[in-house]
Amino acid sequence: MQPFSRVTVIGLGLIGSSICRAVRAYMPTARVTGHDADAEVRAIARRIDLCDDVTDTAGASVIDADLVILCVPVGAMGKAAAAIAADLPADAIVSDVGGAKASVFAALRDALPGVTIVPGHPVAGTEFCGPESGFASLFKGRWCILTPDEATPPLATLRLRAFWEGFGANVEEMTPEHHDLVLAVTSHVPHLIAYTIVGTASDLEAVTRSEVIKYSAGGFRDFTRIAASDPTMWRDVFLNNREAVLEVMQRLTEDLGAMQKAIRNGDGDVLFDAFSRTRAIRRSIIEQGQDDAKPDFGRSH
Amino acid sequence: MQPFSRVTVIGLGLIGSSICRAVRAYMPTARVTGHDADAEVRAIARRIDLCDDVTDTAGASVIDADLVILCVPVGAMGKAAAAIAADLPADAIVSDVGGAKASVFAALRDALPGVTIVPGHPVAGTEFCGPESGFASLFKGRWCILTPDEATPPLATLRLRAFWEGFGANVEEMTPEHHDLVLAVTSHVPHLIAYTIVGTASDLEAVTRSEVIKYSAGGFRDFTRIAASDPTMWRDVFLNNREAVLEVMQRLTEDLGAMQKAIRNGDGDVLFDAFSRTRAIRRSIIEQGQDDAKPDFGRSH
Repeated sequence: MQPFSRVTVIGLGLIGSSICRAVRAYMPTARVTGHDADAEVRAIARRIDLCDDVTDTAGASVIDADLVILCVPVGAMGKAAAAIAADLPADAIVSDVGGAKASVFAALRDALPGVTIVPGHPVAGTEFCGPESGFASLFKGRWCILTPDEATPPLATLRLRAFWEGFGANVEEMTPEHHDLVLAVTSHVPHLIAYTIVGTASDLEAVTRSEVIKYSAGGFRDFTRIAASDPTMWRDVFLNNREAVLEVMQRLTEDLGAMQKAIRNGDGDVLFDAFSRTRAIRRSIIEQGQDDAKPDFGRSH
Repeated sequence: MQPFSRVTVIGLGLIGSSICRAVRAYMPTARVTGHDADAEVRAIARRIDLCDDVTDTAGASVIDADLVILCVPVGAMGKAAAAIAADLPADAIVSDVGGAKASVFAALRDALPGVTIVPGHPVAGTEFCGPESGFASLFKGRWCILTPDEATPPLATLRLRAFWEGFGANVEEMTPEHHDLVLAVTSHVPHLIAYTIVGTASDLEAVTRSEVIKYSAGGFRDFTRIAASDPTMWRDVFLNNREAVLEVMQRLTEDLGAMQKAIRNGDGDVLFDAFSRTRAIRRSIIEQGQDDAKPDFGRSH
């Protein structure tokens, strides 16, 4: 019993192309249709046989869909939704994978009045992008957050839950606002910090860029991975989750100030205590299967 | 032609035990003697046959050494050096692996007047610690920084260079002061940020610790790895590289302020530009073999 039989994916980047592959791998009787606004991406998708069909227009991709998932940057969701509005079947469910949910939900509601919308966000990815970077097992063991509201028919949410669970994902429901705060902490602020520190390091006069690269194994290289993520996607996330990101940044700035003060004052106990309590979090993440237990993420040595 | 034939390693944690293993793997005719101040660590080292000999006192470990490497936390270097001073052969070279070099060099000079000292720092490691966490290939392809001064006999530096190159490491020389600034950028500040953000995330009232763990694959988990590093080692690094760390933190704080301002003002162009230029650094790190090219550090999926 598959929850959907005609799935359309709009936006064939890392996440969209991984969904296409996962549908084919785990829901073999479902048909998957793809569309991307970029003709070059469509050509690649056809060449690598990503979908059963890749259409040249967004409208053509949804005409017989029972599930449409928008996998475009958060700032492009409203436009992508508007492009399918006229051709969407009355009983189709529309979802998305955007990393900010309150603003996306509002944009989808505006563009698709009367349509059943179940916003979603699979918390998974790599630093690579484009149709060739996806893989079917990306969502396995990861969490997918759904953010329906009171107007969402419970059956639609149940079907979407079954869809993600079919990929091996765990599904959780919460409000869009809570999602945005949780992700500000676990994803958005870490990305902002990583992007910033990589920039700071390249701008120092007294340390050359070549030195930063050579000695990056001391810790810096970990930050460069997420700082290599798609700039458009991340610009849109920050513009669309402004309040929660600034709130968490405010707290982080205070905590960084306390650390600097402890260093300035030579207060070893404060540092030791702070550095000791963080290990428990790492341990829990590994115990719950959210990271590799191997040293150094399992990097090859 | 091996540069040393009787190597003593004092402190048998991740780095010390990796040196022991590397000597055995790559310099099979050299004898390696180990000592650790902790009796439990000595017992483990004996059980896993880490060294040719594990001595109960520091003095006994150095009596016939031609190279002694101190692998204890930065703040314990002076004491470790003092403990071997009386038994050190006149022609032995003393080195270390500390992550801060100016303060360690001063402490070693104080404790070992007249001894040939070549301070060193292999920029390599994992988040694990203890004698069982080491491995012989840890230094392969990584950089080892030596910080001799004018008083250091050039031949001693050459021999230590050959020693590290024997493990597959690349060797660079610089002043202790420059080392401390470079490492503040590439290692110390990244660790401080990681420790802090993991702490901030656990302290938020509106987001539970369980949520932070569940959704950590969105970026946060990357930070928890280095925030699981040894607290004593890192406390000592910050206490002993205060000025450089605070200088880099000052710059980072300014840059974070600029990012927050761009988010607050909805200035997408500033964000996009900042997020675009950081990719080049990641690319160079991979090209130069300082990180895994595989997506997500090669984590298993």
